Amino acid sequence: MNKIEQLQSYLNEMEIDAAFITNPDNVFYLSGFKSDPHERLLGVMVFKDAAPFLICPQMEIPDAQNAGWSGDIIGHVDTENAMEVLHRTASAKSDSIRTLAIEKSHMTVDRYEALNEFFGNPSFFALDDKVNAMRVIKDEAELEILREAAALADYAIEVAAKNLREGITEIELMTEIELALKKRGVTHMSFDTTVLAGSKAASPHGKTGDRKLQSGDLVLFDLGVVHKGYCSDITRTLALGEPSEEQKEVYEIVRRAEEAALNAVKPGVTAAELDKTARDVIEKAGYGEYFTHRLGHGLGISVHEFPSLHGSNNMVMEAGMVFTLEPGVYVPGKVGVRIEDDVAVTETGVEVLTKFPKELQIIHHS
Amino acid sequence: MNKIEQLQSYLNEMEIDAAFITNPDNVFYLSGFKSDPHERLLGVMVFKDAAPFLICPQMEIPDAQNAGWSGDIIGHVDTENAMEVLHRTASAKSDSIRTLAIEKSHMTVDRYEALNEFFGNPSFFALDDKVNAMRVIKDEAELEILREAAALADYAIEVAAKNLREGITEIELMTEIELALKKRGVTHMSFDTTVLAGSKAASPHGKTGDRKLQSGDLVLFDLGVVHKGYCSDITRTLALGEPSEEQKEVYEIVRRAEEAALNAVKPGVTAAELDKTARDVIEKAGYGEYFTHRLGHGLGISVHEFPSLHGSNNMVMEAGMVFTLEPGVYVPGKVGVRIEDDVAVTETGVEVLTKFPKELQIIHHS
Repeated sequence: MNKIEQLQSYLNEMEIDAAFITNPDNVFYLSGFKSDPHERLLGVMVFKDAAPFLICPQMEIPDAQNAGWSGDIIGHVDTENAMEVLHRTASAKSDSIRTLAIEKSHMTVDRYEALNEFFGNPSFFALDDKVNAMRVIKDEAELEILREAAALADYAIEVAAKNLREGITEIELMTEIELALKKRGVTHMSFDTTVLAGSKAASPHGKTGDRKLQSGDLVLFDLGVVHKGYCSDITRTLALGEPSEEQKEVYEIVRRAEEAALNAVKPGVTAAELDKTARDVIEKAGYGEYFTHRLGHGLGISVHEFPSLHGSNNMVMEAGMVFTLEPGVYVPGKVGVRIEDDVAVTETGVEVLTKFPKELQIIHHS
Repeated sequence: MNKIEQLQSYLNEMEIDAAFITNPDNVFYLSGFKSDPHERLLGVMVFKDAAPFLICPQMEIPDAQNAGWSGDIIGHVDTENAMEVLHRTASAKSDSIRTLAIEKSHMTVDRYEALNEFFGNPSFFALDDKVNAMRVIKDEAELEILREAAALADYAIEVAAKNLREGITEIELMTEIELALKKRGVTHMSFDTTVLAGSKAASPHGKTGDRKLQSGDLVLFDLGVVHKGYCSDITRTLALGEPSEEQKEVYEIVRRAEEAALNAVKPGVTAAELDKTARDVIEKAGYGEYFTHRLGHGLGISVHEFPSLHGSNNMVMEAGMVFTLEPGVYVPGKVGVRIEDDVAVTETGVEVLTKFPKELQIIHHS
């Protein structure tokens, strides 16, 4: 059953007449067409008992076709009321739409009011949880793309290690990394690339800046790429010159915490249990107060998606889920270390998508 | 009267009890605090008869203070219901909130439902037009930032001209430009930098890619920077090696169209009249069918904001408005030229913010 069919089956089960999906990430998930329409209307309409259609700005129709959407595509131009076009098209497909599923965490009030007007005050149903539940399990095609995205993140850290030297600034390092990725065809990063040197890595508010690297710095890299519509997200902390005993100790604690969480990943374990596994290691070492964030987050079309790996999420892990494991210890003004992998739950355990070594890399370039 | 006072005065005039602003660009406009809170609640609540407050994630409070917001700041943590915190705080400031202004083009349905629940089904009022009307007139402090942003865009085109040579690819040129800007402290571009060479510049779907520049190419650059929270946006089309007669002719038509529009800018002229001024030049030259988009768009905190300069917008230009003028001619498969300036309406005419020359620059690097 493909994704559209899964959604149709759900609409039938719930006795919902139609679903109108407008979150661009969800439109991409269902249609293969990725587009940022800004204020213009883009969406997929799925019916319980009719063929779906895609609605988009007229000029984007060729892109939508090229993206592989084989259903009907309805264009609209700026001089039309796009909601009127939507209603007219939907009414021709289905006699009566009395219940309509929408993404309540994405749809804006003005569009909601327009739907109310054109569809005659239908009953609205929140589709967010269902789409999240679909997206949380990756199929083999998605996993293959996520592997490729993770390999590009590994490569970025290799470039970072190669360029780590005294005197280079955080921004210059960031630029070297992104330049190398562009040469491999990467056009977008998952988020602003972070390079934090020395005590800056210990601040939750640290921003990549003009700080020059010095021997004795631990340097934290947090970055990811968007590849075929999917995101990677890696963190590694590298040492420039010989680290202090304290730096080595903190690094080793974080590395063991990450490893413990990684070894605990399998179908049946909960998000909270994974978080606790890593947190226990850090707490036992006496650094619990310095691990100030959740263990990780789901990864896919969005760089932050379901599941969220925190201490009060009892969601059970299943094969096909992909998420980050990223414990960190931040001793203010002194030392900051985070290690982050992207992992997929398999039938029997875990597949680690990011492969750059996690033993502390000590770089001696000057 | 500062911006918050202007809004309060409006609430009194319209007899609206309070406004809750959550669009991050508008929050920045009113508070000076720029933040992307993702799914977390960030907003400014303004009352007709009480002091305003800012609500944000707890960990962002120091950033909000540093940004210069001097009113109350209310933090919320992930384990709280942020809407409940909002309601509790608002109720302590004002006895009864029966009418509430919101940005209907930004607020999501789930938040709207939560406001309905906590505030007991108030009457909602769309604040979008009012905030847009405020933002459309820039004050002197904003104009000064926009001048600086435009100067950085000029610099980017200088870098482009310096690096224009046979064999370099579009992506390599883009990288050289962005690297040079990073060295000047630019951390974000207004949008994806566009470099299109030869016939690619004639396609509305052209994307910066691996095409190598050849002698005889016209090369189109469209880019801008985010500077102190405000955007610039420039387009220049440069010639690599001696251009053909057709290329020179098309370039000259676009240049004259842009100049004509520029000379027509002053208080009292309408957006439609400006669009027509440029379009007439291109139509008279016989290329009307190849000028396929509006003349320009407003510019400020957003790279596309009010006013929109198209043929059916009769909005009257006023001193303090800032927008782009960007006529173009795209002859499919052959030649594409666009020239774009950022301009401000003054009391007596126009100030051109972008200053890179508009006479066709013919570059002879190989």
